[in-house]
Amino acid sequence: MRTDRLEAFSDGVFAVAITLLVLDLQLPPTNVSLIQGLADRWPGFAAFGLSFAIIGIIWVNHHALVGALRVVDRPLLFLNLALLMSVVLLPFTTSLFARYLVRGGGDAHVAAAIFSGSSLLMSLGFNVIYVWIIRHPALRYDATPPRSSVRATLRFGVGGVVYAASIGIAFISALLVFVLSALVAAYYVLDQVTSSEPVES
Amino acid sequence: MRTDRLEAFSDGVFAVAITLLVLDLQLPPTNVSLIQGLADRWPGFAAFGLSFAIIGIIWVNHHALVGALRVVDRPLLFLNLALLMSVVLLPFTTSLFARYLVRGGGDAHVAAAIFSGSSLLMSLGFNVIYVWIIRHPALRYDATPPRSSVRATLRFGVGGVVYAASIGIAFISALLVFVLSALVAAYYVLDQVTSSEPVES
Amino acid sequence: MRTDRLEAFSDGVFAVAITLLVLDLQLPPTNVSLIQGLADRWPGFAAFGLSFAIIGIIWVNHHALVGALRVVDRPLLFLNLALLMSVVLLPFTTSLFARYLVRGGGDAHVAAAIFSGSSLLMSLGFNVIYVWIIRHPALRYDATPPRSSVRATLRFGVGGVVYAASIGIAFISALLVFVLSALVAAYYVLDQVTSSEPVES
Amino acid sequence: MRTDRLEAFSDGVFAVAITLLVLDLQLPPTNVSLIQGLADRWPGFAAFGLSFAIIGIIWVNHHALVGALRVVDRPLLFLNLALLMSVVLLPFTTSLFARYLVRGGGDAHVAAAIFSGSSLLMSLGFNVIYVWIIRHPALRYDATPPRSSVRATLRFGVGGVVYAASIGIAFISALLVFVLSALVAAYYVLDQVTSSEPVES
Repeated sequence: MRTDRLEAFSDGVFAVAITLLVLDLQLPPTNVSLIQGLADRWPGFAAFGLSFAIIGIIWVNHHALVGALRVVDRPLLFLNLALLMSVVLLPFTTSLFARYLVRGGGDAHVAAAIFSGSSLLMSLGFNVIYVWIIRHPALRYDATPPRSSVRATLRFGVGGVVYAASIGIAFISALLVFVLSALVAAYYVLDQVTSSEPVES
Repeated sequence: MRTDRLEAFSDGVFAVAITLLVLDLQLPPTNVSLIQGLADRWPGFAAFGLSFAIIGIIWVNHHALVGALRVVDRPLLFLNLALLMSVVLLPFTTSLFARYLVRGGGDAHVAAAIFSGSSLLMSLGFNVIYVWIIRHPALRYDATPPRSSVRATLRFGVGGVVYAASIGIAFISALLVFVLSALVAAYYVLDQVTSSEPVES
Repeated sequence: MRTDRLEAFSDGVFAVAITLLVLDLQLPPTNVSLIQGLADRWPGFAAFGLSFAIIGIIWVNHHALVGALRVVDRPLLFLNLALLMSVVLLPFTTSLFARYLVRGGGDAHVAAAIFSGSSLLMSLGFNVIYVWIIRHPALRYDATPPRSSVRATLRFGVGGVVYAASIGIAFISALLVFVLSALVAAYYVLDQVTSSEPVES
Repeated sequence: MRTDRLEAFSDGVFAVAITLLVLDLQLPPTNVSLIQGLADRWPGFAAFGLSFAIIGIIWVNHHALVGALRVVDRPLLFLNLALLMSVVLLPFTTSLFARYLVRGGGDAHVAAAIFSGSSLLMSLGFNVIYVWIIRHPALRYDATPPRSSVRATLRFGVGGVVYAASIGIAFISALLVFVLSALVAAYYVLDQVTSSEPVES
């Protein structure tokens, strides 16, 4: 099975999910001034930025992973669907996180844990696909194991470990979960930009 | 007519429809605890998972079917539009099913029957396209009837029969319709994953 | 400029617009039975089906038109954007039409006229693009005027004339506008299916 | 890294964002006549048209810019994501602008400034990508600096300067911001249509 429709469908889901994030930026209530109304909703804007970065990063990684594939088998199609389901859930868990971060109280901890859980799911989905591709050389253009695989596995693992730890951290401080998630996102962007080299089209 | 725009448009509709499912995951009311609020809405989450699986499976099948085509004729474009209409309706019928499964009562039976009906429509749409392609060898790369066609016809038929039966079963138990639909989805995923073999790109 | 991104962007807009139609199928109120609630909203379902057919038909025609192009010039990009704007408006005018068809009264006439106006805009947009392509042979693979151009012009004109007339007819009967639009859609589907012949990919 | 998935993902985001604009065209309240209700909401329709034009223009420019690329490096992927974030924000800032333009008062000035700020962000994002491509000849098909680069830089700059000035102008007149933005959009469309020449596919 060709990789092009896998790419087209995945790109479609990534594009819709990243754009739907804007639907969570609700207009402020009209009984306070606009500036006040927007300021009260800062967690919504921060969550929008974070989720946009998370989906953007996972898209860049997905792009790189699928680019190494010559063919796709059926299990990979379904693993990819599972990854996409975690991507599609992110606007919902983000929206939940933002709402309860504003409201505070005990539910903010629960919402932060759910957000961490959905980030962990995405990370796990990505890692399972990565392992599947490493173990099935026939799917790849280049059957020899990629030299960078150890480093890449470590790197992907970092996110997973932080997200798993965040589920516990959520019950200490919801805000800390937000900060940690933002740091992981910033780390991925910096890591990828600095290791950048153009590749022939 | 080339198949690539049929694929691009269909992938777009599948991607938007599968991502819009998240809009049905509404935030819980704020007068109960978050955990309670989410627990009360479990049918919404179960329906999200089921619909995601159904659209994902139909996408994989669509992918395989169109991959066998060399050209597309106009009737096929319109049959494909009819299939896509049933796909676009699924988020609505899923939302309806989830709401009345929570509320219970007589309307839960009606909602389950409507959900089964929309699954049946999708199954019928897929089967009509399948038969059209089997009967018009000039549209295919390989004009000889596919060896697997009898088996595939049987397999596609299973879903159709279960969905048709579900319309009646809905009036006995709405929950049973949900379980049966989940079993059909699991059967398709397992069947396809086990019969998997990579194909040249 | 290559035609592929024009196609990809247009297919994206068509796919999103046709899928967003489902958002107008709101869940019925819970103070009546589900069957009663859905029956009361029949114009919403009828409008969904009609709009789905209209966007589907315009997609098929767009597909055929752009398939004849070798290159795209800038005016064509902007004419295409104008056509897409009329496509994007259709879910809104459909929703308006469906709501006031249920409510009846004088506003139903206005809503039917607005719906006809938006269909007319789409038809005009399509015709302007068609004329632009006919008048600029350098854009086409085949510089000789297509043999079918006279017939096609007439055919495209039919929709435009009916939609223009519908603006007036709206003030006699909103329902008649709906029936006429459905007949035009059915005519296009039948005309295209019967004149169908497969083309090399 | 190939440019095709960058294009597919970007086209997806542009297509979804431009189509989601229709969700801001809410149905009018039912306690006034339909014509009155629509007339009261004219800023919503004007903002829809303006935002559609702005996203359409940025898509045409993006199309031209990426068309000059042979390969994509990682920084460019992330710069592109930043540009897409500003595109995704536009339906929200448009909706805000339209609402407060109807309501008037001091908040209309703030909303106009926010709208200008988001237009400025989009303009800046586009200019940064443009400069990156000019400075990295290895990414381009044609390593010699494009002859038209000075003119293009000036042209892109016009929008940026107007949008920056609009942030200040917003506090004089919100409506003037709308008119200026519409003039910039009209200038870009006219400039591009008149400098049009078809290019080989």
